[in-house]
Amino acid sequence: MERENRVSVGGMESDKDVRVANKRSLRCSDLVLRFVALALTLAAAVVLGVDKQTTLLEVTLVSSLPPVHVPVTAKWHYLSAFVYFVVANAIACSYAAVSLLLTLATRGGKKNVALMIIILDLVMVALLFSGNGATMTAGLLGYQGNKHVQWNKVCDAFGKFCNQVGAAIAMSMLASLAFLLLVLLAALNLHKKHK
Amino acid sequence: MERENRVSVGGMESDKDVRVANKRSLRCSDLVLRFVALALTLAAAVVLGVDKQTTLLEVTLVSSLPPVHVPVTAKWHYLSAFVYFVVANAIACSYAAVSLLLTLATRGGKKNVALMIIILDLVMVALLFSGNGATMTAGLLGYQGNKHVQWNKVCDAFGKFCNQVGAAIAMSMLASLAFLLLVLLAALNLHKKHK
Repeated sequence: MERENRVSVGGMESDKDVRVANKRSLRCSDLVLRFVALALTLAAAVVLGVDKQTTLLEVTLVSSLPPVHVPVTAKWHYLSAFVYFVVANAIACSYAAVSLLLTLATRGGKKNVALMIIILDLVMVALLFSGNGATMTAGLLGYQGNKHVQWNKVCDAFGKFCNQVGAAIAMSMLASLAFLLLVLLAALNLHKKHK
Repeated sequence: MERENRVSVGGMESDKDVRVANKRSLRCSDLVLRFVALALTLAAAVVLGVDKQTTLLEVTLVSSLPPVHVPVTAKWHYLSAFVYFVVANAIACSYAAVSLLLTLATRGGKKNVALMIIILDLVMVALLFSGNGATMTAGLLGYQGNKHVQWNKVCDAFGKFCNQVGAAIAMSMLASLAFLLLVLLAALNLHKKHK
Protein backbone atom coordinates (compact mmCIF):
# COMPACT_ATOMS: atom_id res chain seq x y z
CA MET A 1 0.00 0.00 0.00
CA GLU A 2 2.74 2.37 1.03
CA ARG A 3 4.72 1.42 -2.03
CA GLU A 4 1.71 2.09 -4.32
CA ASN A 5 1.30 5.54 -2.77
CA ARG A 6 4.94 6.30 -3.34
CA VAL A 7 4.67 5.22 -6.97
CA SER A 8 1.59 7.35 -7.60
CA VAL A 9 3.21 10.37 -5.88
CA GLY A 10 6.26 9.76 -8.04
CA GLY A 11 3.99 9.68 -11.13
CA MET A 12 2.40 13.00 -10.18
CA GLU A 13 5.79 14.56 -9.71
CA SER A 14 6.99 13.38 -13.11
CA ASP A 15 3.75 14.70 -14.68
CA LYS A 16 4.44 18.07 -13.10
CA ASP A 17 8.04 17.93 -14.32
CA VAL A 18 6.85 17.24 -17.88
CA ARG A 19 4.39 20.14 -17.69
CA VAL A 20 7.06 22.53 -16.37
CA ALA A 21 9.49 21.34 -19.07
CA ASN A 22 6.81 21.83 -21.78
CA LYS A 23 6.04 25.31 -20.49
CA ARG A 24 9.74 26.20 -20.52
CA SER A 25 10.31 24.90 -24.06
CA LEU A 26 7.18 26.76 -25.26
CA ARG A 27 8.39 29.98 -23.63
CA CYS A 28 11.83 29.46 -25.15
CA SER A 29 10.39 28.91 -28.68
CA ASP A 30 8.19 32.00 -28.23
CA LEU A 31 11.19 34.17 -27.29
CA VAL A 32 13.37 32.78 -30.11
CA LEU A 33 10.63 33.31 -32.74
CA ARG A 34 9.97 36.83 -31.47
CA PHE A 35 13.68 37.66 -31.66
CA VAL A 36 13.94 36.17 -35.19
CA ALA A 37 10.90 38.24 -36.28
CA LEU A 38 12.48 41.38 -34.76
CA ALA A 39 15.80 40.84 -36.57
CA LEU A 40 14.21 39.95 -39.93
CA THR A 41 11.72 42.85 -40.03
CA LEU A 42 14.48 45.27 -39.02
CA ALA A 43 16.74 43.92 -41.78
CA ALA A 44 13.92 43.96 -44.37
CA ALA A 45 12.95 47.57 -43.54
CA VAL A 46 16.59 48.75 -43.65
CA VAL A 47 17.53 46.83 -46.83
CA LEU A 48 14.58 48.31 -48.76
CA GLY A 49 14.71 51.66 -46.93
CA VAL A 50 18.26 52.43 -48.13
CA ASP A 51 17.72 50.98 -51.63
CA LYS A 52 18.95 53.42 -54.28
CA GLN A 53 20.82 52.98 -57.56
CA THR A 54 22.04 55.43 -60.18
CA THR A 55 22.75 54.15 -63.67
CA LEU A 56 23.67 55.73 -67.00
CA LEU A 57 21.01 55.24 -69.68
CA GLU A 58 21.74 55.70 -73.39
CA VAL A 59 19.40 58.29 -74.95
CA THR A 60 19.43 59.13 -78.67
CA LEU A 61 18.37 62.78 -79.08
CA VAL A 62 19.14 63.23 -82.80
CA SER A 63 19.61 60.18 -85.02
CA SER A 64 22.69 61.65 -86.77
CA LEU A 65 24.50 62.24 -83.45
CA PRO A 66 25.90 59.55 -81.08
CA PRO A 67 23.65 58.69 -78.06
CA VAL A 68 23.96 60.70 -74.85
CA HIS A 69 24.42 58.99 -71.45
CA VAL A 70 21.94 60.35 -68.93
CA PRO A 71 22.22 59.42 -65.21
CA VAL A 72 18.91 58.00 -63.90
CA THR A 73 18.31 57.16 -60.22
CA ALA A 74 15.91 54.55 -58.79
CA LYS A 75 14.81 55.22 -55.19
CA TRP A 76 12.75 52.98 -52.91
CA HIS A 77 10.04 55.61 -52.23
CA TYR A 78 9.16 55.99 -55.93
CA LEU A 79 6.63 53.14 -55.60
CA SER A 80 3.90 53.33 -52.95
CA ALA A 81 4.05 49.53 -52.48
CA PHE A 82 7.67 49.85 -51.29
CA VAL A 83 6.72 52.66 -48.86
CA TYR A 84 3.93 50.48 -47.43
CA PHE A 85 6.37 47.56 -47.11
CA VAL A 86 8.97 49.61 -45.20
CA VAL A 87 6.33 51.12 -42.88
CA ALA A 88 4.73 47.69 -42.25
CA ASN A 89 8.10 46.11 -41.43
CA ALA A 90 9.07 49.05 -39.18
CA ILE A 91 5.78 48.71 -37.25
CA ALA A 92 6.23 44.92 -36.94
CA CYS A 93 9.83 45.41 -35.79
CA SER A 94 8.85 47.93 -33.09
CA TYR A 95 6.02 45.68 -31.94
CA ALA A 96 8.34 42.62 -31.85
CA ALA A 97 10.73 44.57 -29.58
CA VAL A 98 7.94 45.71 -27.22
CA SER A 99 6.34 42.25 -27.09
CA LEU A 100 9.73 40.63 -26.43
CA LEU A 101 10.24 42.93 -23.44
CA LEU A 102 6.66 42.34 -22.23
CA THR A 103 7.08 38.55 -22.51
CA LEU A 104 10.34 38.72 -20.59
CA ALA A 105 8.87 41.05 -17.94
CA THR A 106 5.63 39.19 -17.25
CA ARG A 107 7.17 35.69 -17.65
CA GLY A 108 3.92 34.50 -19.23
CA GLY A 109 2.13 35.00 -15.91
CA LYS A 110 -0.41 37.70 -16.82
CA LYS A 111 -3.24 36.15 -18.80
CA ASN A 112 -4.61 39.44 -20.22
CA VAL A 113 -1.18 40.54 -21.47
CA ALA A 114 -0.81 37.13 -23.13
CA LEU A 115 -4.19 37.54 -24.86
CA MET A 116 -3.29 41.06 -26.06
CA ILE A 117 -0.02 39.71 -27.46
CA ILE A 118 -1.85 36.95 -29.40
CA ILE A 119 -4.23 39.54 -30.91
CA LEU A 120 -1.39 41.89 -31.92
CA ASP A 121 0.66 38.97 -33.32
CA LEU A 122 -2.34 38.21 -35.52
CA VAL A 123 -2.55 41.85 -36.67
CA MET A 124 1.16 41.67 -37.59
CA VAL A 125 0.49 38.54 -39.69
CA ALA A 126 -2.14 40.48 -41.66
CA LEU A 127 0.04 43.60 -41.98
CA LEU A 128 3.19 41.77 -43.11
CA PHE A 129 1.44 39.42 -45.55
CA SER A 130 -0.32 42.35 -47.26
CA GLY A 131 3.02 44.21 -47.47
CA ASN A 132 4.70 41.12 -48.95
CA GLY A 133 1.95 40.72 -51.56
CA ALA A 134 2.15 44.39 -52.51
CA THR A 135 5.95 44.44 -52.87
CA MET A 136 6.02 41.09 -54.66
CA THR A 137 3.65 42.49 -57.33
CA ALA A 138 5.69 45.67 -57.82
CA GLY A 139 8.93 43.65 -57.87
CA LEU A 140 7.59 41.15 -60.43
CA LEU A 141 6.37 43.97 -62.68
CA GLY A 142 9.80 45.59 -62.49
CA TYR A 143 11.47 42.25 -63.22
CA GLN A 144 9.24 40.98 -66.04
CA GLY A 145 7.20 44.00 -67.14
CA ASN A 146 3.75 43.47 -68.67
CA LYS A 147 3.26 43.73 -72.41
CA HIS A 148 -0.55 43.92 -72.19
CA VAL A 149 -0.47 47.27 -70.40
CA GLN A 150 2.88 48.26 -71.93
CA TRP A 151 4.71 48.52 -68.61
CA ASN A 152 8.36 47.85 -69.45
CA LYS A 153 10.66 45.92 -67.13
CA VAL A 154 13.22 48.09 -65.36
CA CYS A 155 15.32 45.48 -63.59
CA ASP A 156 17.69 44.97 -66.53
CA ALA A 157 18.90 48.56 -65.97
CA PHE A 158 18.65 48.51 -62.15
CA GLY A 159 19.90 45.02 -61.24
CA LYS A 160 21.35 45.88 -57.81
CA PHE A 161 18.20 47.78 -56.84
CA CYS A 162 15.97 44.82 -57.78
CA ASN A 163 18.19 42.28 -55.99
CA GLN A 164 17.88 44.35 -52.81
CA VAL A 165 14.07 44.37 -53.20
CA GLY A 166 14.14 40.55 -53.58
CA ALA A 167 16.27 40.13 -50.46
CA ALA A 168 13.95 42.40 -48.45
CA ILE A 169 10.88 40.40 -49.60
CA ALA A 170 12.53 37.08 -48.62
CA MET A 171 13.38 38.37 -45.13
CA SER A 172 9.92 39.86 -44.60
CA MET A 173 8.30 36.58 -45.69
CA LEU A 174 10.32 34.65 -43.11
CA ALA A 175 9.37 37.25 -40.47
CA SER A 176 5.67 36.92 -41.32
CA LEU A 177 5.99 33.12 -41.02
CA ALA A 178 7.55 33.65 -37.58
CA PHE A 179 4.54 35.74 -36.48
CA LEU A 180 2.19 33.09 -37.94
CA LEU A 181 4.02 30.40 -35.93
CA LEU A 182 3.74 32.56 -32.79
CA VAL A 183 -0.08 32.68 -33.15
CA LEU A 184 -0.12 28.92 -33.89
CA LEU A 185 2.00 28.15 -30.81
CA ALA A 186 -0.27 30.28 -28.60
CA ALA A 187 -3.40 28.54 -29.99
CA LEU A 188 -1.83 25.10 -29.46
CA ASN A 189 -0.84 26.05 -25.93
CA LEU A 190 -4.33 27.30 -25.00
CA HIS A 191 -5.87 24.24 -26.66
CA LYS A 192 -3.61 21.88 -24.68
CA LYS A 193 -4.46 23.61 -21.39
CA HIS A 194 -8.15 23.51 -22.20
CA LYS A 195 -7.93 19.81 -23.11
CA MET B 1 -28.99 26.41 6.12
CA GLU B 2 -31.45 24.82 3.67
CA ARG B 3 -32.19 28.22 2.21
CA GLU B 4 -28.49 28.95 1.73
CA ASN B 5 -28.09 25.66 -0.11
CA ARG B 6 -31.01 26.44 -2.38
CA VAL B 7 -29.59 29.89 -3.16
CA SER B 8 -26.19 28.47 -4.01
CA VAL B 9 -27.76 25.75 -6.19
CA GLY B 10 -29.80 28.49 -7.90
CA GLY B 11 -26.58 30.48 -8.41
CA MET B 12 -24.89 27.48 -9.98
CA GLU B 13 -27.81 26.94 -12.33
CA SER B 14 -27.82 30.55 -13.49
CA ASP B 15 -24.02 30.36 -13.97
CA LYS B 16 -24.55 27.30 -16.14
CA ASP B 17 -27.30 29.13 -18.07
CA VAL B 18 -24.96 32.05 -18.73
CA ARG B 19 -22.23 29.68 -19.92
CA VAL B 20 -24.62 27.84 -22.24
CA ALA B 21 -25.96 31.17 -23.59
CA ASN B 22 -22.38 32.42 -24.15
CA LYS B 23 -21.44 29.22 -25.94
CA ARG B 24 -24.53 29.50 -28.15
CA SER B 25 -23.91 33.15 -29.06
CA LEU B 26 -20.23 32.34 -29.81
CA ARG B 27 -21.25 29.44 -32.05
CA CYS B 28 -23.80 31.65 -33.76
CA SER B 29 -21.23 34.44 -34.42
CA ASP B 30 -18.80 31.81 -35.74
CA LEU B 31 -21.38 30.46 -38.20
CA VAL B 32 -22.47 33.94 -39.34
CA LEU B 33 -18.85 35.08 -39.88
CA ARG B 34 -18.02 31.89 -41.77
CA PHE B 35 -21.06 32.37 -44.01
CA VAL B 36 -20.18 36.04 -44.62
CA ALA B 37 -16.61 35.02 -45.53
CA LEU B 38 -17.94 32.34 -47.90
CA ALA B 39 -20.28 34.78 -49.68
CA LEU B 40 -17.70 37.59 -49.93
CA THR B 41 -14.82 35.43 -51.22
CA LEU B 42 -17.17 33.82 -53.77
CA ALA B 43 -18.36 37.25 -54.95
CA ALA B 44 -14.78 38.64 -55.07
CA ALA B 45 -13.49 35.67 -57.11
CA VAL B 46 -16.43 35.84 -59.55
CA VAL B 47 -16.38 39.66 -59.93
CA LEU B 48 -12.66 39.66 -60.82
CA GLY B 49 -12.80 36.29 -62.64
CA VAL B 50 -15.32 37.54 -65.22
CA ASP B 51 -13.72 41.00 -65.54
CA LYS B 52 -13.20 41.89 -69.20
CA GLN B 53 -13.63 45.12 -71.18
CA THR B 54 -13.11 45.99 -74.82
CA THR B 55 -12.61 49.62 -75.77
CA LEU B 56 -11.72 51.49 -78.95
CA LEU B 57 -8.39 53.29 -78.75
CA GLU B 58 -7.41 56.10 -81.17
CA VAL B 59 -4.13 55.30 -82.92
CA THR B 60 -2.43 57.72 -85.33
CA LEU B 61 -0.52 55.69 -87.91
CA VAL B 62 0.44 58.52 -90.30
CA SER B 63 0.25 62.13 -89.18
CA SER B 64 -1.38 63.30 -92.42
CA LEU B 65 -4.26 60.75 -92.09
CA PRO B 66 -7.07 60.77 -89.49
CA PRO B 67 -6.53 58.44 -86.47
CA VAL B 68 -7.67 54.80 -86.67
CA HIS B 69 -9.85 53.24 -83.93
CA VAL B 70 -8.40 49.92 -82.76
CA PRO B 71 -10.37 47.62 -80.40
CA VAL B 72 -8.29 46.72 -77.32
CA THR B 73 -9.43 44.22 -74.69
CA ALA B 74 -8.45 44.13 -71.00
CA LYS B 75 -8.78 40.68 -69.37
CA TRP B 76 -8.36 39.77 -65.68
CA HIS B 77 -5.66 37.12 -66.33
CA TYR B 78 -3.29 39.58 -68.04
CA LEU B 79 -1.80 40.46 -64.62
CA SER B 80 -0.41 37.68 -62.41
CA ALA B 81 -1.53 39.58 -59.28
CA PHE B 82 -5.16 39.25 -60.43
CA VAL B 83 -4.71 35.50 -61.08
CA TYR B 84 -3.26 35.06 -57.57
CA PHE B 85 -6.18 37.05 -56.12
CA VAL B 86 -8.84 34.92 -57.87
CA VAL B 87 -7.11 31.65 -56.87
CA ALA B 88 -6.68 32.82 -53.24
CA ASN B 89 -10.34 33.83 -52.99
CA ALA B 90 -11.48 30.56 -54.61
CA ILE B 91 -9.42 28.54 -52.09
CA ALA B 92 -10.75 30.62 -49.17
CA CYS B 93 -14.32 30.21 -50.47
CA SER B 94 -14.01 26.40 -50.75
CA TYR B 95 -12.44 26.22 -47.30
CA ALA B 96 -15.20 28.44 -45.82
CA ALA B 97 -17.82 26.04 -47.22
CA VAL B 98 -16.05 22.94 -45.86
CA SER B 99 -15.41 24.52 -42.45
CA LEU B 100 -19.04 25.68 -42.25
CA LEU B 101 -20.21 22.10 -42.83
CA LEU B 102 -17.65 20.74 -40.33
CA THR B 103 -18.71 23.27 -37.68
CA LEU B 104 -22.36 22.37 -38.23
CA ALA B 105 -21.63 18.62 -38.20
CA THR B 106 -19.41 18.46 -35.10
CA ARG B 107 -21.38 21.16 -33.18
CA GLY B 108 -18.11 22.39 -31.69
CA GLY B 109 -17.74 19.14 -29.76
CA LYS B 110 -14.54 17.72 -31.27
CA LYS B 111 -11.56 19.59 -29.87
CA ASN B 112 -9.08 18.46 -32.54
CA VAL B 113 -11.37 19.53 -35.39
CA ALA B 114 -11.76 22.90 -33.67
CA LEU B 115 -7.96 23.28 -33.45
CA MET B 116 -7.53 22.35 -37.13
CA ILE B 117 -10.15 24.95 -38.07
CA ILE B 118 -8.32 27.68 -36.08
CA ILE B 119 -5.05 26.81 -37.86
CA LEU B 120 -6.66 26.84 -41.33
CA ASP B 121 -8.54 30.09 -40.55
CA LEU B 122 -5.14 31.61 -39.78
CA VAL B 123 -3.71 30.33 -43.09
CA MET B 124 -6.68 31.96 -44.89
CA VAL B 125 -5.91 35.29 -43.16
CA ALA B 126 -2.35 35.12 -44.55
CA LEU B 127 -3.49 34.01 -48.02
CA LEU B 128 -6.22 36.64 -48.41
CA PHE B 129 -4.18 39.54 -47.02
CA SER B 130 -1.30 38.79 -49.41
CA GLY B 131 -3.78 38.59 -52.32
CA ASN B 132 -5.33 41.91 -51.29
CA GLY B 133 -1.92 43.59 -51.10
CA ALA B 134 -0.92 42.23 -54.51
CA THR B 135 -4.14 43.28 -56.25
CA MET B 136 -4.20 46.67 -54.52
CA THR B 137 -0.72 47.42 -55.91
CA ALA B 138 -1.64 46.36 -59.47
CA GLY B 139 -4.93 48.30 -59.24
CA LEU B 140 -3.25 51.47 -57.95
CA LEU B 141 -0.64 51.31 -60.73
CA GLY B 142 -3.43 50.95 -63.29
CA TYR B 143 -5.33 53.85 -61.71
CA GLN B 144 -2.49 56.30 -61.15
CA GLY B 145 0.43 54.95 -63.21
CA ASN B 146 3.99 55.73 -62.12
CA LYS B 147 6.01 58.39 -63.88
CA HIS B 148 9.36 57.29 -62.38
CA VAL B 149 9.26 53.93 -64.20
CA GLN B 150 7.12 55.27 -67.06
CA TRP B 151 4.21 52.91 -66.44
CA ASN B 152 1.17 54.75 -67.78
CA LYS B 153 -2.23 54.57 -66.11
CA VAL B 154 -4.76 52.46 -67.99
CA CYS B 155 -7.91 53.06 -65.95
CA ASP B 156 -8.92 56.17 -67.92
CA ALA B 157 -9.48 53.88 -70.95
CA PHE B 158 -10.80 50.88 -68.98
CA GLY B 159 -13.06 52.50 -66.37
CA LYS B 160 -15.55 49.62 -65.97
CA PHE B 161 -12.73 47.06 -65.72
CA CYS B 162 -11.00 49.05 -62.96
CA ASN B 163 -14.24 49.62 -61.03
CA GLN B 164 -14.81 45.86 -60.98
CA VAL B 165 -11.25 45.34 -59.65
CA GLY B 166 -11.98 47.90 -56.89
CA ALA B 167 -15.24 46.15 -55.92
CA ALA B 168 -13.49 42.75 -55.79
CA ILE B 169 -10.73 44.18 -53.55
CA ALA B 170 -13.30 45.71 -51.17
CA MET B 171 -15.19 42.41 -50.85
CA SER B 172 -12.02 40.37 -50.35
CA MET B 173 -10.84 42.81 -47.66
CA LEU B 174 -14.10 42.35 -45.74
CA ALA B 175 -13.76 38.55 -46.12
CA SER B 176 -10.19 38.62 -44.79
CA LEU B 177 -11.42 40.69 -41.81
CA ALA B 178 -14.10 38.01 -41.21
CA PHE B 179 -11.40 35.28 -41.10
CA LEU B 180 -9.30 37.48 -38.78
CA LEU B 181 -12.32 37.89 -36.47
CA LEU B 182 -12.87 34.09 -36.54
CA VAL B 183 -9.32 33.49 -35.25
CA LEU B 184 -9.78 36.27 -32.65
CA LEU B 185 -13.08 34.76 -31.45
CA ALA B 186 -11.49 31.30 -31.14
CA ALA B 187 -8.53 32.73 -29.17
CA LEU B 188 -10.88 34.68 -26.87
CA ASN B 189 -12.99 31.57 -26.33
CA LEU B 190 -9.99 29.36 -25.45
CA HIS B 191 -8.59 32.13 -23.23
CA LYS B 192 -11.91 32.47 -21.36
CA LYS B 193 -12.13 28.69 -20.79
CA HIS B 194 -8.54 28.60 -19.59
CA LYS B 195 -9.15 31.54 -17.22
